[in-house]
Amino acid sequence: MASLKDVGERALVDRIIRNVRGSAHIGPGDDAACIDINGTRIVVSTDVVTFEKHMVKGMTMEQFGWFSAAVNFSDIASMGARPLGILAAVSLPSGTDESVLYDIMDGISQCAEFCGTEILGGDTKTGYGSVCGTTLGVCDRNILTRSGARPGDLVAVTGSLGSAAAGWHAALNDIRDDDSFSAAALPVPRVKEGMFLSENGIATSCMDISDGLSSTAAAICGSSGVGMDILWESLPAGKSVAGIAGKLGLDAKDLVLNGGGEYELMFTFRKGSLDMLHSSDIDFAVIGAVTGGGLNLITDGKTAPLEDRGYEHFTKD
Amino acid sequence: MASLKDVGERALVDRIIRNVRGSAHIGPGDDAACIDINGTRIVVSTDVVTFEKHMVKGMTMEQFGWFSAAVNFSDIASMGARPLGILAAVSLPSGTDESVLYDIMDGISQCAEFCGTEILGGDTKTGYGSVCGTTLGVCDRNILTRSGARPGDLVAVTGSLGSAAAGWHAALNDIRDDDSFSAAALPVPRVKEGMFLSENGIATSCMDISDGLSSTAAAICGSSGVGMDILWESLPAGKSVAGIAGKLGLDAKDLVLNGGGEYELMFTFRKGSLDMLHSSDIDFAVIGAVTGGGLNLITDGKTAPLEDRGYEHFTKD
Repeated sequence: MASLKDVGERALVDRIIRNVRGSAHIGPGDDAACIDINGTRIVVSTDVVTFEKHMVKGMTMEQFGWFSAAVNFSDIASMGARPLGILAAVSLPSGTDESVLYDIMDGISQCAEFCGTEILGGDTKTGYGSVCGTTLGVCDRNILTRSGARPGDLVAVTGSLGSAAAGWHAALNDIRDDDSFSAAALPVPRVKEGMFLSENGIATSCMDISDGLSSTAAAICGSSGVGMDILWESLPAGKSVAGIAGKLGLDAKDLVLNGGGEYELMFTFRKGSLDMLHSSDIDFAVIGAVTGGGLNLITDGKTAPLEDRGYEHFTKD
Repeated sequence: MASLKDVGERALVDRIIRNVRGSAHIGPGDDAACIDINGTRIVVSTDVVTFEKHMVKGMTMEQFGWFSAAVNFSDIASMGARPLGILAAVSLPSGTDESVLYDIMDGISQCAEFCGTEILGGDTKTGYGSVCGTTLGVCDRNILTRSGARPGDLVAVTGSLGSAAAGWHAALNDIRDDDSFSAAALPVPRVKEGMFLSENGIATSCMDISDGLSSTAAAICGSSGVGMDILWESLPAGKSVAGIAGKLGLDAKDLVLNGGGEYELMFTFRKGSLDMLHSSDIDFAVIGAVTGGGLNLITDGKTAPLEDRGYEHFTKD
């Protein structure tokens, strides 16, 4: 058999899903699983972050704690659910100063509080430095999945794109830039936005942009059996992306399209919902339209395929 | 500040709990947290197991998968809840053969099925070899906690004691012993037993014996504000414990009292429930009585303090 790095995370997840019995209300494959208990729909998700892979250079342990919680609450947000709380299993080398553990827990607690919840429980073990978070939510209205986009829908994203990736590179190269550092280290879980999209029946599909815009668009297209035309000019690039890319000789377009780590939401919606979105306080940008097939990027009137080049675990170590 | 190994897991957990807001129905500190959602009580728990610390010598990856799920379902069992499913976040080095991931997932799936549930979701990441499991359950009746034991109650355990620790040592020393190997590698989550104790209102407290009998007894005594007199002669030592201890020059009594890894349940109950327990198909042994204070081991009529010498993370690396 092949090694994990030859196969890549997404193919692995696909193969695992085929082997999972899958009577869950919304099966594995979306950002979170959903189970129906006595008529109450509980949404639950788990994600591991590690010092080795996810520690932005210069990040404090408190910030790492926030980050570890935020990526997990983001999965609840992308389902349109109301968060209930988080469990955190923290693994640290046994020689670690105890303050590290308290700082991580403080950061997790702050993010949980930002999401209107709290730490429900957890585990501490010896290990190499990681937090496995598990978030729970409850869905009172429509569950948002990746599979409901229909041709004619519009495509939108919350917030801005590319800042997290730019921030990661800036920090690595000792360029101080608060805006992009915050985007990389302290992502804001779009819980309020997800709940608004769910409660008002606006979104036809939704997913968080953890692995980059191109991957997210490809995932929604794949799950929904549709295509998308994305307009390059409409993409809301983060304000310091071009500057950092210029300083470091990086491709700003690549950061915006494939950077990942934003934890913004990508969602699709019927045109008729545009007024309701505009009258809300949600910060969003329409970036394209759902089509019958093919994922394209339209730049200056020219159409080219938008390749799925987002981050994938195992293959890009 | 001190390092984690100086402080030890239990003191760390105590300090964290004091800082957690804790409006959860049953707070952190019991085996699982419990939250009330629209009148439905959801129980949730998370636990990490690692190749480095938890891989019994000779264990297959499928067995490791079962083990990782069993320790998590055990936490649901000890609350008396009905399991709903498991999420598994698997971290593996990127060069790992993909069959390892599938085997681990197979083992998790088998244990989930044994518990009448399924895999609800998960995550795969590059890492050093660990599974962070999260189990969910629902409590239709009484939630079992560590804090309800009252003087005059009897103390009981399910199954037998010491086999898991004996199996761990036997495997390390290439002694083949199926009974103890199974106890160490393939613990049976006492879900059926926990649900019986909850549904029939029998147990006044309950906890799984993951860190050894002495630690478990000390934890229940601490949480309940009581003591216990445990009768050495009544402890159900596993059938191969004495033999393995003899071969390896280990103290059989230490394996039974402090070995841990059994994932059996310790519970307390009112004497009046004994008939109902005896008429059930639960394999249990009465091992002592709850008292007003002091945790004692009575051996051949002599009373001595039973010291909490069970396994503690960070301090015994």
